[in-house]
Amino acid sequence: MDPPADENLETEEMGVRSMSTSHGQAPHVHKVRIPPRQNLFKEFQVTIQETFFPDDPLRCFKDQPKSRKLILGIEAIFPILKWGRSYDLKKFRGDIISGLTIASLCIPQDIGYAKLAHLPPQNALYTSFIPPLIYAAMGSSRDIAIGPVAVVSLLLGTLLSNEIDPDKHAAEYKRLAFTATFFAGITQATLGIFRLGFLIDFLSHAAIVGFMAGAAISISLQQLKGFLGIKNKQGVEIVRHIDKGLNPSSVKEIYFSGEYLGKGLRIGIVSGMIALTENTAIGRTFASVKDYQLDGNKEMVALGVVNVVGSMTSCYVATGSFSRSAVNFMAGCQTAVSNIVMSTVVFLTLLFMTPLFKYTPTAILSTIIIFAVINLVDYHAAISIWKIDKIDFVACMGAFFGVVFASIEIGLLIAISISFARILLQVTRPRTAVLGKIPSTSVYRNIQQYPEASKVAGVVIVRVDSAIYFSNSNYVKERILRWLVDEEEQVKGDYHTKIQFLIVEMSAVADIDTTGIRAFKELQRSLEMKGVKLVLANPGPAVIDKLYASNFVNMIGKDRIFINVAEAVAYCSPRLVGDP
Amino acid sequence: MDPPADENLETEEMGVRSMSTSHGQAPHVHKVRIPPRQNLFKEFQVTIQETFFPDDPLRCFKDQPKSRKLILGIEAIFPILKWGRSYDLKKFRGDIISGLTIASLCIPQDIGYAKLAHLPPQNALYTSFIPPLIYAAMGSSRDIAIGPVAVVSLLLGTLLSNEIDPDKHAAEYKRLAFTATFFAGITQATLGIFRLGFLIDFLSHAAIVGFMAGAAISISLQQLKGFLGIKNKQGVEIVRHIDKGLNPSSVKEIYFSGEYLGKGLRIGIVSGMIALTENTAIGRTFASVKDYQLDGNKEMVALGVVNVVGSMTSCYVATGSFSRSAVNFMAGCQTAVSNIVMSTVVFLTLLFMTPLFKYTPTAILSTIIIFAVINLVDYHAAISIWKIDKIDFVACMGAFFGVVFASIEIGLLIAISISFARILLQVTRPRTAVLGKIPSTSVYRNIQQYPEASKVAGVVIVRVDSAIYFSNSNYVKERILRWLVDEEEQVKGDYHTKIQFLIVEMSAVADIDTTGIRAFKELQRSLEMKGVKLVLANPGPAVIDKLYASNFVNMIGKDRIFINVAEAVAYCSPRLVGDP
Repeated sequence: MDPPADENLETEEMGVRSMSTSHGQAPHVHKVRIPPRQNLFKEFQVTIQETFFPDDPLRCFKDQPKSRKLILGIEAIFPILKWGRSYDLKKFRGDIISGLTIASLCIPQDIGYAKLAHLPPQNALYTSFIPPLIYAAMGSSRDIAIGPVAVVSLLLGTLLSNEIDPDKHAAEYKRLAFTATFFAGITQATLGIFRLGFLIDFLSHAAIVGFMAGAAISISLQQLKGFLGIKNKQGVEIVRHIDKGLNPSSVKEIYFSGEYLGKGLRIGIVSGMIALTENTAIGRTFASVKDYQLDGNKEMVALGVVNVVGSMTSCYVATGSFSRSAVNFMAGCQTAVSNIVMSTVVFLTLLFMTPLFKYTPTAILSTIIIFAVINLVDYHAAISIWKIDKIDFVACMGAFFGVVFASIEIGLLIAISISFARILLQVTRPRTAVLGKIPSTSVYRNIQQYPEASKVAGVVIVRVDSAIYFSNSNYVKERILRWLVDEEEQVKGDYHTKIQFLIVEMSAVADIDTTGIRAFKELQRSLEMKGVKLVLANPGPAVIDKLYASNFVNMIGKDRIFINVAEAVAYCSPRLVGDP
Repeated sequence: MDPPADENLETEEMGVRSMSTSHGQAPHVHKVRIPPRQNLFKEFQVTIQETFFPDDPLRCFKDQPKSRKLILGIEAIFPILKWGRSYDLKKFRGDIISGLTIASLCIPQDIGYAKLAHLPPQNALYTSFIPPLIYAAMGSSRDIAIGPVAVVSLLLGTLLSNEIDPDKHAAEYKRLAFTATFFAGITQATLGIFRLGFLIDFLSHAAIVGFMAGAAISISLQQLKGFLGIKNKQGVEIVRHIDKGLNPSSVKEIYFSGEYLGKGLRIGIVSGMIALTENTAIGRTFASVKDYQLDGNKEMVALGVVNVVGSMTSCYVATGSFSRSAVNFMAGCQTAVSNIVMSTVVFLTLLFMTPLFKYTPTAILSTIIIFAVINLVDYHAAISIWKIDKIDFVACMGAFFGVVFASIEIGLLIAISISFARILLQVTRPRTAVLGKIPSTSVYRNIQQYPEASKVAGVVIVRVDSAIYFSNSNYVKERILRWLVDEEEQVKGDYHTKIQFLIVEMSAVADIDTTGIRAFKELQRSLEMKGVKLVLANPGPAVIDKLYASNFVNMIGKDRIFINVAEAVAYCSPRLVGDP
């Protein structure tokens, strides 16, 4: 399995003992390779591919005849055509049971959620009829149950009622709701088509946990009022009225001009992103449990179409529901057919049964909503976040308290800001560490992690744990110099071990830009004045390329770049100059 | 120098041959250490220190008596008290020559720059009198020449005249200029006091090169008109009038209320940041050439005080000038005393000589300005940026063409956006690589950089080149799985070398958050279903800590985490199961 070892190529990596006995002899050194030069266009193409098409979505189209490509293309847009062919009675049994289960859950939930959104109950029912049908044809998750959800209803209700009073101007309010739904769909489809799905990754897991818990608490608090069920001490409050009949068209109600266009757009973008986040989180969870692939960008296009069509058929923003999807999964759903079953039940309800819900006490709806959302308070997750990562916990709590004590938007803003601050921190203040040799090996590791690691006399070894860009190059330079000063202070007065070499371990430096190169040139100049020689270990492909292109290699000398720290140390140690 | 090798601890790192002969025997494995647990407060303190005080500015105050601390504190604010004590005649000779030189340069430049800012010429002269005196006392650079500069004058002129017409409402315009100057100073001082100086690092070297060149070109084009010097074909245009006398107070002219307060604040922040960037770039360049330390945050406080005082004494935004600082340096300046000399000359000019400048033809001023700014077009730097880094070049050109063809603000915006997009790209799409073994060593390296590296049968080794955070964890997981699929396709049909282990090299993973941990758990689950075992190599201190805290270590097994790839491979290879 291992290639035959070449006896003539005894390297320093082979052991300490061979190194200490071969003092004076020139060690056999492995050159750091410059990767084969790619042409500019090729390089650009690879970057674009990795950024926007990391999943290589066109892979299955490769080397296929034209007619086959067309079929594959249609199947890609409507996955139902693919999985539908292998659909059988056994799967249908699972789907009908789970479909009926989520239908029985969704009708009372919908009526309650409509109240959160300050919309009439029938609009939520419409949202459980058309959207699941479209999702069943276009979606790629087998477990998601589509419809109105608590958090998005609350968000939409808050944002819309900031603009229009839902009691005084109910018609305009509803029109703005459809407008926002339309743009939520457009936002989602656009993100999917332009393969910008990774943008929703910017809401971290911790932020979602805090945000959802906060939303659940504030929804529950709102519902507690209705939970008591007594209004003006005049009897029990009931639903009163639900329109009978299927979704009327609402194409003409969407604002395509005027001042509400901009407002609908803004609210649509925010609620569309949140709906997408919830949908993706659910989709990924179940896909991972059942081990199937979910194409995030395709999923976004599907959800976008769902909401655009929804906005034209009197629906408001639909997405995957946490509570119903979990029930769907546990009831044994097999495919998106369970959504079709649920939709059929809602269809029958809208046609024949809405009058029956008239006398439902709102207290019961409140109870159902509280039970549905209280599961969003995932305190196990919060505890585990606390244990694993304190900054994540701060983001989580920031989102939670922001939503509970300020508003759902402020909570969101806090969570995103803390998450971004963390990334900013990482790119401005990357970690650096001094390395030492682990006894009886030639492995060099962080001396803080491995206290048994020993420093090499006369040499300081520093590793930098990040790409070096304009945002951190000055810090990296100054931090390396400060490590040197710290080490110099420790060996003060000891002429024999005066620091004469500084090795920078560059394994983790994935890339460097021109500002970074400048910083290294300045570092080299500062070291030269101190009489310390700069040595580099293991620069990666992008870095070595730029070190050559910028002529930095000639500044420090080709022979001072090594494949690893062990070989760099083997170069430095025999060259240490003692006090005469 | 090397610790005595322990005969009982023969490791895999010691060579390939020892490994291939010790098949079947349990290899001696080095444990990955969990760093000693720090308490939460300590950890927090270290993070704050590295973020805001990486230069440890209070180091010199340590273990000093109280009275000494007071003196050191005053010296820290006014460095002149420190270097002034060792000032001598020899240094003064250098300073007086360079001071007189830059004075002779600054007076005509100032008159021209005032025109760029649409302000009367005397205001620019005032700016060369008070600000250099304050900077001399508080600044820490020995080479910077302070005063009005071309780019900031142009920026200020553009931004201010967007709000107020400088010809029709000259008095209000001047008041807004003082307001902007005041807030520029406040911005600079605030950044320095709160140690947020690193924010200006977000303007990359490449962006500055492009921005400066663009500004120089557009200033030159503006000046070409004046360069011809003929107005209405009625004779040669001259300066006409400069007020005699020293800076009048302008405290009462600053808008502290009303609609111009907000506008002045906004313009002040933008021009203050640009002024800071120019000052820092110059300061760092000369400090690096003469090898002295420049405290960026202290420098910002100094510049902030300069501009706040300036705004109250009829000055507009002052900063370090590229052209004059270069001349100052080349004329042999030793300390900031050259600024005092220049200031004295301007003082005498304001008192006695302003009438003499009345007949200066503007054509001459235009020529002086063009010569001063044309050096900002650093095409050598642009060429080297092109050679080193293509994305940087795009940022550079974006800034350049933005300034030339749109406006100075749009150019700036383009440059910052491109630079940020790059960081975003790095944190969303980190590099990953498949590793192979370099022949006759136990070093594992990127097979694209080292084509001679050979893959290990039955094992895929992937390294991830970035911290794993919410922004990239999903991508990292899917990219690792895709590497696996690619490798599996290559060995298809070959039962003997079916992939059975996936080693993730984590040296470069500086940190991981809870979203990242979740992604790894999902990765582990996917691999398990494929019958592939996950093995980790060299997780760093922060990562191993979180792998334990999240119980992930128990999920994969403690024995599957190794100090380096060589030991991980030594574990996997004997455990490969062949086809029966």
